[in-house]
Amino acid sequence: MLTFKQFMEQSSKIVNDEMGGLVSSLRAPEKLKESMIYSLQGGGKRIRPLLLFATLHAFNKEINIGVRPACAVEMIHTYSLIHDDLPCMDDDDLRRGQPTNHKVYGEDMAVLAGDALLTYAFQIISEMNEVVVSDAIKIQLIRELSIAAGPEGMVAGQVADMEGERKSLSGEELQSIHERKTGKMLMFPVIAGAILSNATSEHLSHLTQFAWKLGIAFQIQDDILDVIGNVDLIGKPVGSDIENDKTTYVKLYGVTGAKEKLQQFISEAKQHIVSCGLRDDMLLSICDFVGNRNF
Amino acid sequence: MLTFKQFMEQSSKIVNDEMGGLVSSLRAPEKLKESMIYSLQGGGKRIRPLLLFATLHAFNKEINIGVRPACAVEMIHTYSLIHDDLPCMDDDDLRRGQPTNHKVYGEDMAVLAGDALLTYAFQIISEMNEVVVSDAIKIQLIRELSIAAGPEGMVAGQVADMEGERKSLSGEELQSIHERKTGKMLMFPVIAGAILSNATSEHLSHLTQFAWKLGIAFQIQDDILDVIGNVDLIGKPVGSDIENDKTTYVKLYGVTGAKEKLQQFISEAKQHIVSCGLRDDMLLSICDFVGNRNF
Repeated sequence: MLTFKQFMEQSSKIVNDEMGGLVSSLRAPEKLKESMIYSLQGGGKRIRPLLLFATLHAFNKEINIGVRPACAVEMIHTYSLIHDDLPCMDDDDLRRGQPTNHKVYGEDMAVLAGDALLTYAFQIISEMNEVVVSDAIKIQLIRELSIAAGPEGMVAGQVADMEGERKSLSGEELQSIHERKTGKMLMFPVIAGAILSNATSEHLSHLTQFAWKLGIAFQIQDDILDVIGNVDLIGKPVGSDIENDKTTYVKLYGVTGAKEKLQQFISEAKQHIVSCGLRDDMLLSICDFVGNRNF
Repeated sequence: MLTFKQFMEQSSKIVNDEMGGLVSSLRAPEKLKESMIYSLQGGGKRIRPLLLFATLHAFNKEINIGVRPACAVEMIHTYSLIHDDLPCMDDDDLRRGQPTNHKVYGEDMAVLAGDALLTYAFQIISEMNEVVVSDAIKIQLIRELSIAAGPEGMVAGQVADMEGERKSLSGEELQSIHERKTGKMLMFPVIAGAILSNATSEHLSHLTQFAWKLGIAFQIQDDILDVIGNVDLIGKPVGSDIENDKTTYVKLYGVTGAKEKLQQFISEAKQHIVSCGLRDDMLLSICDFVGNRNF
């Protein structure tokens, strides 16, 4: 029986190893592979793979059937960070305490490494072992992932975020941006885990609600950490939201109000897990992890 | 019975209408949709959709089963042009005689419009009507398209092209760049048409060879047009290869030598079509079109 910490470490290791292998084995220019691997191994929290594996665990499924979609969502998350950091976007020099991709490999290579990761994410799902996962399931995974990442999902959120900069947004508008920019990509792994487990529509409905609440909680905590976080733990400068005059949960509700909202969303997320009646240890631990994280 | 010209116009119209509808119906920020549509409707030759429809025609199949993959390959082709034109890449202000995407919508939106088109391409294949196309076929299409466009295909070719700039390349190196940068994305529609027609492996083999030869011919003609082309017909400045000291077929073999090579590849491409024993009128006409095009 693994503790949550062990489960989390195992998840990260599996995904890191698999992604490293998948990119290393490509017959592609070395510099391109280096640039892709540099950002993939940048040491993220791997919260998306963790959510996918924890959902499979809730259904008593082997986590190995989820490795490819876990890598795919992490590759897409990573590509979005590379493109976000570009001078023409957020113009960031540091990411998780390391120089950003374009600072090391140049802007042209950073654009292409991002494009390559996005494309490869769909390829690795299409190439999953058909004995383990049917074509029907692969298509569902690709559909959900493309919706989460594409022009109605993450990209839409990015555009809305850009358009909302230096504007005063309402709580509703802020939530709508986050739902698309980060929410859907946090919901995908839970939905993917449910699809791989042949979940009933009732299970799927609770799990989707859980993931949605968790995603908002995740973002509220991000906003709080930008104000009261420790720069060494977060790996990026704090206070950048205030400097950029960005609408955040803290700006709208204050630190105390935002913390209350955070706890409310975490508690509602937990209720959905409990209502599912599944093996709930890991998913509940993720709620606590998101509610209490300091990096 | 349609003439080749009518077939080509019909293909373009079907794909333009479908792509317009697919993007317009997105629940996405208006500016993002505008930016995507601006580049999609930029008036390309639509050679990739044409190849897909002509392959279906060769198998006596209805071309409507190929509309989604035809749109997908054209969306990916378009995204690659948007990202290619960025200041950090080729830094082009004009594309087909019109201001490039980032000149109109800004660099940040151009990056995101490209990302959105790439992601949406996979979504629209995954959402094809399952009564008409099985999940097994959709997965094959997604796999082939991601390979053609990704880190072993178009993106690899882009990187190799960047790395080869201002270097003297051999004919073999030049061919290897083109195979990846443009060749695989020209082969995809032919392979897709064959997959959708349940082609035998012998048919597939001939068609793949045909598309490969045609792709090289296409590139040779591009290099020739850069030297002797008409700027008004091509819609971009001629002579840019010489100015950038790029290795091209013309630089390696001279205009006459390149023209000979072009005719040789076209003739070999035609032989593969004839050997197939399929309905060959449209595919042969495409060979003549590529061999003689002046834009």
